[in-house]
Amino acid sequence: MTSRERFLAACAVRKVDRPPIWIMRQAGRYLPEYRALKAQHGFLGMVKTPALAAEVTLQPLRRFALDAAILFSDILVIPEALGQGYHFRDEGGIAMEYALTTPAQIAALAPAAAVPERLTYVAQALALLKRELSGNTALLGFGGSPWTLASYMVEGGSSEDFAKIKSLFYTERAHFEALMEKLCAALIAYFKMQIAAGADAIQIFDSWGGVIAGADYETASLQWIRRIVAALPAGFPIILFAKNTAPHHVAQAASGIRVLSVDWTVDLPALARALPAGLALQGNLDPVLLNTTPAIVRQQASQLLEGMRPRPGHIVNLGHGILPSAKIECVEALVQTVVNWS
Amino acid sequence: MTSRERFLAACAVRKVDRPPIWIMRQAGRYLPEYRALKAQHGFLGMVKTPALAAEVTLQPLRRFALDAAILFSDILVIPEALGQGYHFRDEGGIAMEYALTTPAQIAALAPAAAVPERLTYVAQALALLKRELSGNTALLGFGGSPWTLASYMVEGGSSEDFAKIKSLFYTERAHFEALMEKLCAALIAYFKMQIAAGADAIQIFDSWGGVIAGADYETASLQWIRRIVAALPAGFPIILFAKNTAPHHVAQAASGIRVLSVDWTVDLPALARALPAGLALQGNLDPVLLNTTPAIVRQQASQLLEGMRPRPGHIVNLGHGILPSAKIECVEALVQTVVNWS
Repeated sequence: MTSRERFLAACAVRKVDRPPIWIMRQAGRYLPEYRALKAQHGFLGMVKTPALAAEVTLQPLRRFALDAAILFSDILVIPEALGQGYHFRDEGGIAMEYALTTPAQIAALAPAAAVPERLTYVAQALALLKRELSGNTALLGFGGSPWTLASYMVEGGSSEDFAKIKSLFYTERAHFEALMEKLCAALIAYFKMQIAAGADAIQIFDSWGGVIAGADYETASLQWIRRIVAALPAGFPIILFAKNTAPHHVAQAASGIRVLSVDWTVDLPALARALPAGLALQGNLDPVLLNTTPAIVRQQASQLLEGMRPRPGHIVNLGHGILPSAKIECVEALVQTVVNWS
Repeated sequence: MTSRERFLAACAVRKVDRPPIWIMRQAGRYLPEYRALKAQHGFLGMVKTPALAAEVTLQPLRRFALDAAILFSDILVIPEALGQGYHFRDEGGIAMEYALTTPAQIAALAPAAAVPERLTYVAQALALLKRELSGNTALLGFGGSPWTLASYMVEGGSSEDFAKIKSLFYTERAHFEALMEKLCAALIAYFKMQIAAGADAIQIFDSWGGVIAGADYETASLQWIRRIVAALPAGFPIILFAKNTAPHHVAQAASGIRVLSVDWTVDLPALARALPAGLALQGNLDPVLLNTTPAIVRQQASQLLEGMRPRPGHIVNLGHGILPSAKIECVEALVQTVVNWS
């Protein structure tokens, strides 16, 4: 099996020779070659230059026998394409150009048709990668969930309490829905463009779904994800990264997605027994394991693989992005443990 | 029923005239009288001066018909009593005097006997409050869980990834356990002192239990909480604030605690049906609701009360601390909705 065949078989819960593996944020700061390129071009410079985005995407594949490449990009290129730019704060975190607060500001966002026009660099990077990977490695596209993008847009950047987006949801439901409609349309256009450019699967990051009140998760986040999934080609592999949303995994499993990506705080083999067999699962080692030792990584990875053995359709990954402080030899130990698993 | 009788009856899952209510961080920055006192004395000045701590504790009770007063203090007085001081960073968050990293540093922490000696101001504040409340209002003490305190101590303050404390847990288990033993002994001495000084119940804040890998929650956090509960008087009401630990609520319910305090991301009536009937539940409105309007607060509070009607032993609270940006009229609407509930 090629890596791409293995990855797509796991997404479809078909038989594989061994589980596929990739690592969230595998093209990232733990790699010296990434830090060198970033020092030269800056994060957004790499994102917006197709040749650089493709180069960064490929860096981890030159070191490790990963089964998937994920396009180097950022979820916030969508708000930017809609007219709300952003930058990284010196002290950490995101600052949007402004906080989206009024109905007039929501109405003034660009229409969905602007997305493929303004994000041609994404399609170009994917096309470059498609050629480079020659069909042997799975190529992943991605984007934020409508709720997660709306959080940044309404809060005006990173937030601790999400008071503005939640207040909008509680007090001005019609305006909230107008924003979500715009984001859904933009994301549908964006994902269609990624698929046309060669993406084999799409991961939707509902990174901030976990801050929503329990009874509101469906209304505030999941219904919009479901709408996006329904608008994409039937059966196309959509992975939902469901961080900090353990109470909602059953509902997420029934949203039309093919793969549920679970964070490290959940016992994945136990969850697997509770979810329908047709759903693939991705995850879910603690990212901090890659800061420890190769022996500990091998032990923990083997335990996860063993626990997931009865369940076809497991894609090995971390439960969240790899940390900048991760050790290369621990990444190597993880990948080798999976590659040699039988 | 007095407020104290109502609160203790709810903790014991006995019949009440209506559910009791208090609000996490009810003595806090949303109150102008709190901000005035803090501007004069500083946070730690208020914590360490019994008359001021008692005064701040009582401020919200003069405005709202709350059933419980919670001592104004801080979980980090325990590391400080053990020899590791701290301060608040100008840019937000906590900085400990140093990061606890070596076995020698762990061994050098003060013995548990130092806790009641160095924290007499806590006992004095509780005694003042006990007199002031005349037995009509429940008086709550509190502390951090061993895991949560260890997180601050090993990380050297607030953390985003908890890489140091988790690495200690993964790689140096014996040193981790030595630290947890010390913290357990210190917390047992501290809680016994609080009970002797008049606390009617104790809330243990496992605020960072939610960052632990799913399969490790028992080993890293819950077993130490269980040990503390077992060392306190049988049947004494211990409340466990279990933030972001939805996969572990069943295990927490069986840890010897009397009340499980649940965050707002969980559907509390649904959880109530899954947990044993002898356990009381506390929570769990979204703190951001108190930033909206009195009408929305009344609607959401009524919905929670109605959903919990079949379950005796419900203490109404938020799912996390009240935000500094909360509106007084929303707090008033919440308390009045509960007080008038029948």
